[in-house]
Amino acid sequence: MTTTPETDLAADVADGARKMALSYFRKPLAVDDKPDSSPVTVADREIEAYMRACIAAAFPAHGIFGEEQDPERLDASEIWVVDPIDGTKSFVTGHPLFGNLMAFLRDGRPVMGQIEMPALGERWQGTKGQPTLFNGAPCRTSACTDPAEALAYTTDPLLFAGDDRAVFDMLAASVRLLRFGGDCYNYGLLASGHCDLVLEIGLQPYDYLPLVQVIEGAGGVITDWDGRPLGLGSRGDVLASATPELHDRMLARLAERAPVPA
Amino acid sequence: MTTTPETDLAADVADGARKMALSYFRKPLAVDDKPDSSPVTVADREIEAYMRACIAAAFPAHGIFGEEQDPERLDASEIWVVDPIDGTKSFVTGHPLFGNLMAFLRDGRPVMGQIEMPALGERWQGTKGQPTLFNGAPCRTSACTDPAEALAYTTDPLLFAGDDRAVFDMLAASVRLLRFGGDCYNYGLLASGHCDLVLEIGLQPYDYLPLVQVIEGAGGVITDWDGRPLGLGSRGDVLASATPELHDRMLARLAERAPVPA
Repeated sequence: MTTTPETDLAADVADGARKMALSYFRKPLAVDDKPDSSPVTVADREIEAYMRACIAAAFPAHGIFGEEQDPERLDASEIWVVDPIDGTKSFVTGHPLFGNLMAFLRDGRPVMGQIEMPALGERWQGTKGQPTLFNGAPCRTSACTDPAEALAYTTDPLLFAGDDRAVFDMLAASVRLLRFGGDCYNYGLLASGHCDLVLEIGLQPYDYLPLVQVIEGAGGVITDWDGRPLGLGSRGDVLASATPELHDRMLARLAERAPVPA
Repeated sequence: MTTTPETDLAADVADGARKMALSYFRKPLAVDDKPDSSPVTVADREIEAYMRACIAAAFPAHGIFGEEQDPERLDASEIWVVDPIDGTKSFVTGHPLFGNLMAFLRDGRPVMGQIEMPALGERWQGTKGQPTLFNGAPCRTSACTDPAEALAYTTDPLLFAGDDRAVFDMLAASVRLLRFGGDCYNYGLLASGHCDLVLEIGLQPYDYLPLVQVIEGAGGVITDWDGRPLGLGSRGDVLASATPELHDRMLARLAERAPVPA
């Protein structure tokens, strides 16, 4: 495995973000509701500020897109995408399944991604052209090709509203086992071969772009529900699968849903 | 805090169950589907056999009710209720949120309960008349009294079928934040004051009886959806709340649902 200046920075940033997150975890924290009614805490804000400062110090010309602050230099060819706490709803309920996410994009395509789980001491890092690492060791998706055999996750069934409710019902009817919760952690489990399928909706670029290289470098596939690659402008519906065959079968079922505006 | 022969045994059993569970966790395991289509593995079976052997050696006259084997001596006035792996769906997907549960009943009422989380190194133990302990230190539920402020959990929305779907919708509409997954862990979070409300359906005695003293000893309330205490013959619908006020308010909303046969 070859490290790059970008992977080194991501690892350093995750080490710091882990310490910061744990210093706030299970402590009394004011929880504010954002305009979209998702929660945010001082921990989200301070960790994002720290991540941005680290990136700006190492790569001052790079762009930054994050959850809590305005985007910077999005016209740059190299852009970092950061989520200080993915799973803030877990974080504020003392639940250890919250993550810290980073992606590095070159010319609009994610070429590095990282899922850091502060309270679990677990980290996945994916770099284009290299095997995904789980706590430093290569990991691999399962060999599952049949939806009926798939162990599947989706974080929040309430996000499937209106016409998308039919997609949730299709998912529940298609797979062997469907579990809930988890946020970014579900994609780490997929990369390590523990589950086979994750289907979600309503994600933001800082939620899904850090997952891309983690999944692809472990042998899996991740696209939107129409099979298109994920970028900063994607809709936020995501399908991640352990194998190309499983992915194609789920895309075929998704193709039967009500049309979604592009 | 006074230990009793029963709490000492429960702690010893949990120590062993933790080691056994971790020896199987994230290893290749055949997953069988039980008649109710819930998964079971050799880990479930071997851990329950171990738990039963420990109990029988210490208290040969006591009854035992568990998930994987037939009940023994249920006419005894003292009965142990054991769940070797609560959250087998998590366990088989490499997910650390699975537990090991024990309850001790005297004359039909749970007087001791324990939630052990092998992969997280966390344990709650509740004994009648004493404060609930989290990893050996007393813990306490939150002071939340208003459903609209409550951070709530339910493991699996798919369990709310038919008329019960309206209860799920009521829960989702009542609370500040609703999260999914977690199984027994949600009740530990409640006992430690991290979340405020758990509402579930379709639980078995080995799922819910170990929770009772954990919740009550931390200041919370746990009953069925009609406010009745939980015993071996309860229906399996469970409401757990941080405070009596919050509990009463949720019971009032549950009272508006379609009638359920007693």
